[in-house]
Order: sequence, then C-alpha cells, then structure tokens
Amino acid sequence: MAKNISFLTLSFLSLIFTFDTFGQEAKATFIDARELTLVGKIYHKGPFYHRLDTAAIPDLPKAVKVLATHAAGLAITFQTSSSKISAKWCTSSGVPTDNMTGLAFEGMDLYIKRNDRWQYAGVARPKSHNCNEAEIVANMAPGNKTCLLFLPTYDETISLQIGVDAGATISPATHPFKKNIVVYGSSIVQGASASRPGLSYPARLSRETGLNFINLGFSGNAKMETEVANLVSDLSMDALILDCVPNPSPEEVLARTTNFVTTIRKKHPKIPIIAIQSIAREKGNFDTQVASRVSLKNNYFETEIKKLQKHDQNLYLIYADGLLGDDQEGTTDGIHPNDLGFDRMLHKVRPMILKIFRSYEI
Amino acid sequence: MAKNISFLTLSFLSLIFTFDTFGQEAKATFIDARELTLVGKIYHKGPFYHRLDTAAIPDLPKAVKVLATHAAGLAITFQTSSSKISAKWCTSSGVPTDNMTGLAFEGMDLYIKRNDRWQYAGVARPKSHNCNEAEIVANMAPGNKTCLLFLPTYDETISLQIGVDAGATISPATHPFKKNIVVYGSSIVQGASASRPGLSYPARLSRETGLNFINLGFSGNAKMETEVANLVSDLSMDALILDCVPNPSPEEVLARTTNFVTTIRKKHPKIPIIAIQSIAREKGNFDTQVASRVSLKNNYFETEIKKLQKHDQNLYLIYADGLLGDDQEGTTDGIHPNDLGFDRMLHKVRPMILKIFRSYEI
Repeated sequence: MAKNISFLTLSFLSLIFTFDTFGQEAKATFIDARELTLVGKIYHKGPFYHRLDTAAIPDLPKAVKVLATHAAGLAITFQTSSSKISAKWCTSSGVPTDNMTGLAFEGMDLYIKRNDRWQYAGVARPKSHNCNEAEIVANMAPGNKTCLLFLPTYDETISLQIGVDAGATISPATHPFKKNIVVYGSSIVQGASASRPGLSYPARLSRETGLNFINLGFSGNAKMETEVANLVSDLSMDALILDCVPNPSPEEVLARTTNFVTTIRKKHPKIPIIAIQSIAREKGNFDTQVASRVSLKNNYFETEIKKLQKHDQNLYLIYADGLLGDDQEGTTDGIHPNDLGFDRMLHKVRPMILKIFRSYEI
Repeated sequence: MAKNISFLTLSFLSLIFTFDTFGQEAKATFIDARELTLVGKIYHKGPFYHRLDTAAIPDLPKAVKVLATHAAGLAITFQTSSSKISAKWCTSSGVPTDNMTGLAFEGMDLYIKRNDRWQYAGVARPKSHNCNEAEIVANMAPGNKTCLLFLPTYDETISLQIGVDAGATISPATHPFKKNIVVYGSSIVQGASASRPGLSYPARLSRETGLNFINLGFSGNAKMETEVANLVSDLSMDALILDCVPNPSPEEVLARTTNFVTTIRKKHPKIPIIAIQSIAREKGNFDTQVASRVSLKNNYFETEIKKLQKHDQNLYLIYADGLLGDDQEGTTDGIHPNDLGFDRMLHKVRPMILKIFRSYEI
C-alpha cells in the first residue's frame, strides 16, 4: 500500500499550489495521510482511521462500535526533508469532557526520531470541533526526519492531510514498532486525561519499547462482553494486556472474567496474558462507597485470575497497589490518571511487562 | 469577617430548603462561600473572588487587569460535619483553550485534611461555561472535616455556594497557611495545563509546605512592566519568587529585569527574592528559533540578576536546566508543563526554595 511520493512529484505539485505566492513565503504542499504509513492497527480493513472494522459484527455493543471509530493509539509515520510540518484534518463534532484537553480529544502530537529516541516535536492545535489547519513545527534544521504523528484520542478522524515545504520530500516510513501487544481496557487505556494523544500509556509504551501496543481502550465500556471477547480473540497478537476492571460492576467482573480469558486462550494457546487490577480511584479517598466498590472488583478479579492460573502458566496478574504513588495527585478527577499518574504507572508496570515478555522472546 | 454558622442556623435553613422533599433524600443546604475563609489573597479588598484590586491602578496593562479577576490560587477553607459536599457556582463565559481541561479552567477541586496532610477528595465538574451545580464528594464517614476548595484557575468566579447535608454544621476554618510568598509569573504560574486548579504549582507548594504561596501568574502577560513592579512592591510579603522570563521578549528581559527587582527591593529591603530562569520550551526541541530565543532570554536574565547580586545578598537565581526531566514528556504543548512536568519542577525547586527560606526563618 505504501507509495513513495518522490521529490519530483511534490515539486510539480508545489508549482500548482504556489504559483500565486510569488514574493511571499512558499505555501505548504499537502499530502493525504492515507498515502503514508499507518501505525497502531492490526488489520488494515474498514475505514482507514477506525481502530477496528466492526461492520461484520452486528452483536457488538453499540457503544463499543462507536468508540472503535476513535483513532486512539493510531499514528502516521513518514519521512520528510521539510523544515516545517503542518496538518489539515477533520474530526466528528464531539466536544471534550471536563477532564480532557482539546489537544488530546481532537488534536494531534508529533514526535521525531533523534538519537534513537522518539522526541516531542509539536502539537496540532484544534481551533474548532470539526475541521482544522495548524502548523505543528517550523524552523527545523536541514536533513531528513522520521516522523510519528499521533491522531486524536477521543474523536473520529475523518480526514488528514500533512503539509510540508513546497519542494520538500515526503514518503511513507517503515513501521517503527514490532509485534502486536493488544491492550484491552477502559478510558484510562483509551487515553482520557492524558494531556495529548501520544501521552496515553499504550502510546508511551510503544515509543519507549519499540513494541507495537495496540490501543483497544473503550471509554466506559470495557465490560468483557462475550462479543468483545470473540472480537479480541480474532486478532493476531503476541501478547494481551487486560486493564478492564474499572468499567464492569463487581458482579460483571465475577461473572465475565473467566469467559473472557478462556475465549481468548482458545485461539491463542501460548501468548502471555497480563491482567492488571484497577488502579485506586482517588475519588474513594473519602467516598467510602467508591473505595469499597473498587476493592471488591479487584478482589473478584484476583480470585478469578488465580483460579485460571492453576491451569494456565501464561496468565499473569499485576496488583494495582501504589501504581499512582501515595500523594493522591496522580489523577485529574479522582478516576483518570493525569500525565503524572500515567508516568508513575509506567515506572512500575513497564519493567514487569518487559520481564514477562523476555520469557517469550517478545 | 469570619462568622460561625451554627448547627442551629443551618437546621433552620434546612427546614426552608427541604420541606418539599418529604420522603426523598434531604436536599443539601447551601451557604455563600463569602461567609467562609478565603485563602490565597493578601489584601481583602475589591471583588471577593478577584486576586487583586486593580481599580485604583489605571495605568496597569489591560490584560493584567483582566487576568487579576481570575481566581487562580484562591481557595475557600471551612469545617463541616457533612457526609457530602456540593457546589453551585457561576463563572464568566470563557471557554478553555486547547491545552486546558474544563476542570482547571472553570471547575474546582477539594482537599480534606487527614493525617496532617491535604488529601484529594473530589472535583466540581463544570457542565456549562456559566453557572453549574455539582456534587464534589459523597458517602463520607461521620466526623468533622477541614476542607480546602480551590477555585477556577482561568475564569472569573462570580459566585459560589457550598452545599452540605441538611442539618450538618459548616463554619469558616482557620487560615491554614503561614506567611506570604508571592509568585509572579506567566501562564505556567497561573496554572495553565495543570489538570485541575489545585495542581498548579503554587497551590501544590502551599499544601505541601504549609506556606501561603500567592498566585500572581498572568497568562502571557508577566512582562515586568513598571506599573506591575509598583503593584507587586505594595504587597505585604515575606518572600518573592520571580518566574517571569517566559512572556517578555529577550529585549524586554534585558531592559526590565533590573528595574523590576530594584523597585521591589526599595520597599522590601531584606526579603529573599528568588529568580527562576524559563523552563525549556520542548517546542524548541526541533524549532531552532524557539530554542535560541529561550536561551537568549535566560542568558539575559542571568546577566541582569548576577549584576544585581553584587549588591544584593538576598537575591537568588535558580537555573532552569533539567527542571522538566530529560524525556521531553513533561509538557502538554511544548510550552506549558503538564502535571508530570510540574511534579518534576517541584522535586527540584521545592528543596532549593525551602533551603533559602530557612535562613530567613520562613
């Protein structure tokens, strides 16, 4: 699918776009991002910017179908010689909730590879809830750059064009991440309250480890239904992380955990499955009902996972104690980790996950 | 000004408010927050929820006058026996920019003292850009609680009523913080991109140290003008922190720093003045113009402060290197620290500040 858009092609296009700007700074040349490399998706079918193609699964809960249209964790990678990068993009007309920034909800953030690391380069700021145009970074030193642009976390991306200097090269880059590590979970996985798209925790894990963490966060709707278990089990994956205790009720955790894990295990007999308890809800610091409900869900989850572990050597459990630190400042609203909370989570969870992966040559 | 609102008064009010709810859960009783204790303001004159009374200073830059109406860093403290706390509040009709949450912009967050620490208890979620009503925390264990509610960071607070259980006590609490440490600076000080009001860095410093950090962050407009120097110098304070390099141009930093510091020094001959360089703009990771501009401003600031230090033993300089960490993930948009960036800043700056304060018995 990837095509090389040559220097010559863009130079020709730039003639068309810039002939009316004689004497002014040359306009950018825009290329449709579908001509570049998409990252963060396992199967390239269905609408380009949807995480999953759910058309063939009529039984899927409606909310999950809608959330699958959000581009959380998807990114576009490309190479360019441009000194400046901009974007024109359209999203559906959703509006951020009070615990999210517009940047995370419907904006984008760009990383560029330097010294073998993905380094923050700029953001595409949304000015409206539909179509936007923004400069992401300018005044870059000459030379070829490998870029990774994370798409809006919580809104459907409808179209995206990437702009470079007239005359600059732009071409699809090699997919930068190896393997497929599916992360199934709630709004926390999807990236609510990360301050920009690339700070959601699966996106950070991808950049930091070089592994391809696939964001299957379904805000408020990661409830381990059988239809979702079937959907996830059909994916080609090397490992699975289950961060899906926050959304279901305690009774649902008790009733559904075993079915969810065994449904996936049937199709993936040997992959590591890593189950993570729900992080503490700081909302429960004083609200005794919230605190006891989270505790009950975590206990049920632990019980079910431990039962399964007796016959499943590739199933792991990570306890949630202390994942957000001990000062109660690691969330935005007592529910969703802020960037500080995510950082603390990753400091603890990342080495645990990588240690497990080493046994599987992941 | 503080009045004790007795149990009896509220019980009487609750009769009025709840007589129509027979058989339902009793409605909350609301009290005007102006009857409670305001925190974060030096002089209690002018409109209650404005940080400063600027009416008497016609020469002040207009933007600074407007920003002084924002309640950044202001908080209400009270004691209550209620099991539930809610709020009704109105703000001006501003809308959050793409790098802010609604919670930080026009919402509130509540902390309750437990084990001698201020601990997060809940948020008041804004549902509209004007007037809102929200439950902040519920289902609390019996007993008296000392509460601290931070007001909206980036919007004018017009009115606020705090709701407690009908029949519960609520009364003004003692001011919890000592001394006055004025922090003059940009949007970073005001609290842009902190995910909720109480996570702005002066607010965190107040809760963590027990000192009264006064938020004089003027978003985009901390430019060290003479009129602002006069305004700040008139405040009664025990220390001053200058975090005001981000907004002025390099030329303004060069031209204004000495005048700003000496104007304040005339009225406050012995207080510690701590000048902080601008944090790195991650936007300058690849944008060479941004990077060199920040570097130039920091060099000019350092030069001016060092000249002043030759004759001023109570003037200190904190260098900005590494304040946001080294992974470039400590900002929301390459300009404003996110909660992770603020946490990293505080880890380095807090001990430096406190060490200086010890010499002054602060």
